Amino acid sequence: MDSMSFVLFGATGDLAKRKIFPALYNLFIDQKMPESFSIIGIGRKDFSNDEFQNQVMQSLITFSRRSLEDQKMVQEFLDSIRYQQLDITNKEGFVDLLDLVKEREQELQLPENRLFYLSVAPEFFEVIASNIKESGLGTTKGWKRLIIEKPFGRDLKTARDLNEKLSKSFKEDEIFRIDHYLGKPMVQNLEALEFANPVLQALWNNQYIANVQITASETVGVEERAGYYDKSGAIRDMFQNHMLQMLMMSAMHLTNQNTASDVRAEKKKVLESLLPLSKEEVVSHVVRGQYGSGEQNGKKVVAYRQEPGIEFSSQNDTYVAARVLIENDFWKGIPFYIRTGKRMKEKSTRIVFEFKSPIQNLAKKNSINNGPNLLVIEINPNERVSFYLNSKNVEGNIEPVQAEYFANKEDRPEAYELLVYDALRGDSKFFAHWNEVELSWQWVQPILEAFEENLVPLHTYKSGSFGPEAADELLAEDGFKWWLDTDFVQENENNKTDLKRSI
Amino acid sequence: MDSMSFVLFGATGDLAKRKIFPALYNLFIDQKMPESFSIIGIGRKDFSNDEFQNQVMQSLITFSRRSLEDQKMVQEFLDSIRYQQLDITNKEGFVDLLDLVKEREQELQLPENRLFYLSVAPEFFEVIASNIKESGLGTTKGWKRLIIEKPFGRDLKTARDLNEKLSKSFKEDEIFRIDHYLGKPMVQNLEALEFANPVLQALWNNQYIANVQITASETVGVEERAGYYDKSGAIRDMFQNHMLQMLMMSAMHLTNQNTASDVRAEKKKVLESLLPLSKEEVVSHVVRGQYGSGEQNGKKVVAYRQEPGIEFSSQNDTYVAARVLIENDFWKGIPFYIRTGKRMKEKSTRIVFEFKSPIQNLAKKNSINNGPNLLVIEINPNERVSFYLNSKNVEGNIEPVQAEYFANKEDRPEAYELLVYDALRGDSKFFAHWNEVELSWQWVQPILEAFEENLVPLHTYKSGSFGPEAADELLAEDGFKWWLDTDFVQENENNKTDLKRSI
Repeated sequence: MDSMSFVLFGATGDLAKRKIFPALYNLFIDQKMPESFSIIGIGRKDFSNDEFQNQVMQSLITFSRRSLEDQKMVQEFLDSIRYQQLDITNKEGFVDLLDLVKEREQELQLPENRLFYLSVAPEFFEVIASNIKESGLGTTKGWKRLIIEKPFGRDLKTARDLNEKLSKSFKEDEIFRIDHYLGKPMVQNLEALEFANPVLQALWNNQYIANVQITASETVGVEERAGYYDKSGAIRDMFQNHMLQMLMMSAMHLTNQNTASDVRAEKKKVLESLLPLSKEEVVSHVVRGQYGSGEQNGKKVVAYRQEPGIEFSSQNDTYVAARVLIENDFWKGIPFYIRTGKRMKEKSTRIVFEFKSPIQNLAKKNSINNGPNLLVIEINPNERVSFYLNSKNVEGNIEPVQAEYFANKEDRPEAYELLVYDALRGDSKFFAHWNEVELSWQWVQPILEAFEENLVPLHTYKSGSFGPEAADELLAEDGFKWWLDTDFVQENENNKTDLKRSI
Repeated sequence: MDSMSFVLFGATGDLAKRKIFPALYNLFIDQKMPESFSIIGIGRKDFSNDEFQNQVMQSLITFSRRSLEDQKMVQEFLDSIRYQQLDITNKEGFVDLLDLVKEREQELQLPENRLFYLSVAPEFFEVIASNIKESGLGTTKGWKRLIIEKPFGRDLKTARDLNEKLSKSFKEDEIFRIDHYLGKPMVQNLEALEFANPVLQALWNNQYIANVQITASETVGVEERAGYYDKSGAIRDMFQNHMLQMLMMSAMHLTNQNTASDVRAEKKKVLESLLPLSKEEVVSHVVRGQYGSGEQNGKKVVAYRQEPGIEFSSQNDTYVAARVLIENDFWKGIPFYIRTGKRMKEKSTRIVFEFKSPIQNLAKKNSINNGPNLLVIEINPNERVSFYLNSKNVEGNIEPVQAEYFANKEDRPEAYELLVYDALRGDSKFFAHWNEVELSWQWVQPILEAFEENLVPLHTYKSGSFGPEAADELLAEDGFKWWLDTDFVQENENNKTDLKRSI
């Protein structure tokens, strides 16, 4: 791995504290940092190097998964860090920053490899990138890289604008767009599951799969992010990026030669094959929801419109479900159902592949209690791969059972650790290519417009529920149902739900 | 279920004590016995009904999996039992037996449904069956059934003789031949796994499967059975019956309409498709072994030839491994490897389906540590279904993992309980049809002869090992190896065995 400078904008922010510094430290302990490196934190406030190193130390104590017992190692890590106060709109400040970067490069005899991590609000991406160029920071004898995080625009047009501007300072292969769902171990594992398992490879198509269900449900509400969230909604906050990334990862078809460009090419193919929705068609494929009041963990919670900072008349979506069709040879005719919501009954990110049942099984549905075969990839909070099979029970009757593999969670690196490590090595496999961002926005654009123009009903769903009934109807139209919404049956007062719902 | 009489020959024997009475009692507790029933135990010795009921009580205390807490139930069960002393070669005794059966039928108002269970040495099958007929016991207004246990002959000729004689008194559909491996829950589960799981159904053929490995290894030696075993060997004791039954159960292809005759027809098809071996070909497809001295559980054990009751020059086989080919559309070109042995390192009955790996995976074999996909059905002592998949580990490297389902052992009925229950109901699905017995002997006959004529080398293997090396070579010829012989690597002094051997 090349020795390098890691320049972090927004170094006093929440993400830096909770994720980025702990990730760097964990990598350091695991000997996954370059032999020599300089870390430079940048913020608006004035801190001495000592003060800042102390702050970093505090964040490691609170958030690092690796122990701080080896004081020599901790000190060595902290010693690599410098702090620079900077007004990012002030070009001259960047010249000072260049001086510091160069000074450290000389001290540590580093080649001019510079990674710029923009952990700041997206409205500052452009000015920082431009100032990096103008100041000469980006004119290096080595390589330069830029890490940015979503949101990449708020619709197709603004995303294109942003990209055009960034591309003046950084080339596409220098830009590492973090979608932290792509850093989740089980999402990354989809790659391996597909190409390294002949039995799954054989089954990974519309001959055997009946539908795919991608869920990311949160129990939390809007929390402290009212200002941002009420302008974005679930569609921009989760759907256009994380949900479509999981769709791409589930639907791509890999060979064994999976370079970054192979994977990204396959993902692009998936997006290019998505059946486009016109603004008018959105209403029959997409369900929009907003949480009402309700109960969560036995505690009453208020409706979205009563949350602090939210307008009482807000039409914003806190829940989106969609039927997505992929018009290629592998998936033609197989619906991918995607849903994400806040204030749901359960916190769960998972992908369920439901396999087709032969006709004779369907005919005997009532006489034997077998369910369909499912392959379930649980991403969060559990990390698990399970096969739902039908097996004889003690009574000799057939019933669904789970053959499952739990990934060892304790020892798992976090998404940011995996992604920062990849960026350090220049491996862009699990970063969003501009093609993916653009094509996602392009597919989502009619949904944004249909929501804006209220062409799609806004369903209020009870906090602590599994979302609006309209989302159940979306699947029922095709003869399917959402799998694995546990506890639903027991707590549903009507108790009329098909028992199959909770295997 | 029809009310009936259960007439047990050999009622004071070991099997009756350990298996049959506990099975009947457990079924009674689980309300799986007919509403009314009479049990009549038959033995050579003289016991009063009370004495015999007391013996049964003792056997329930020792061997029943159900509690004896409900004294009323226990008493009711014991009250159903009568004892009759009988010399089975004496026809007149059977007339007395008929009187007792009829007396009980009248007392309990039972229809004349009579089940005869012959828990006696096979040399008595014929005379008992004949006397049942001659005495009029078999002339009923209801149904009659005969349960017998292996061995069914000791070669093709004697098996045919026996069957011919039995068929004079009982029709094929009245004969229930117990192969207790067919009573093992996980063997019965093979039926369900195949037809009730579309994903397995899709994979259950030579397009996806590379080979199948059926193992039944015991840690015990010949024990108290020297007289019988030295004349039978592993080939008659295990291979011709249990091993070929597991082969049939693994290789059959079922639809969802699995009546007893469907299953037996499919099993017959498998046997009919076995590539026959000539006596001369046996040497290249079959490995014969006999245990030498060695160590088991840290205890020195003697060689087979030093066991009490065994001739020092015995050429008897305590181990057999074979490559079996099934020449039908599903399995053409796919070897089924079968092995069974005594004094092996591990007690394990299991079936391993090894899936084919695509060419590109094989090419990269050395660069990534993925193994082939395996489907493992563990039958004994664990009851488990596992998928061996390749998954990313913490380091991002690919490694084999197991997705597994453990059947709940504690609550499982035993083989005899399942089989007796089926016989009571007249369900012959998991009993060996004469076709199966005859075709098995027919396929095994050249092996018997090749062993007899010493055309096949007798390999001595160390007690506590995984059998003769020749059995490894048998698979190595085809580019395969035995999977899941655990602990082998650690304890093999040479330590040159491929690590893949113990995933």
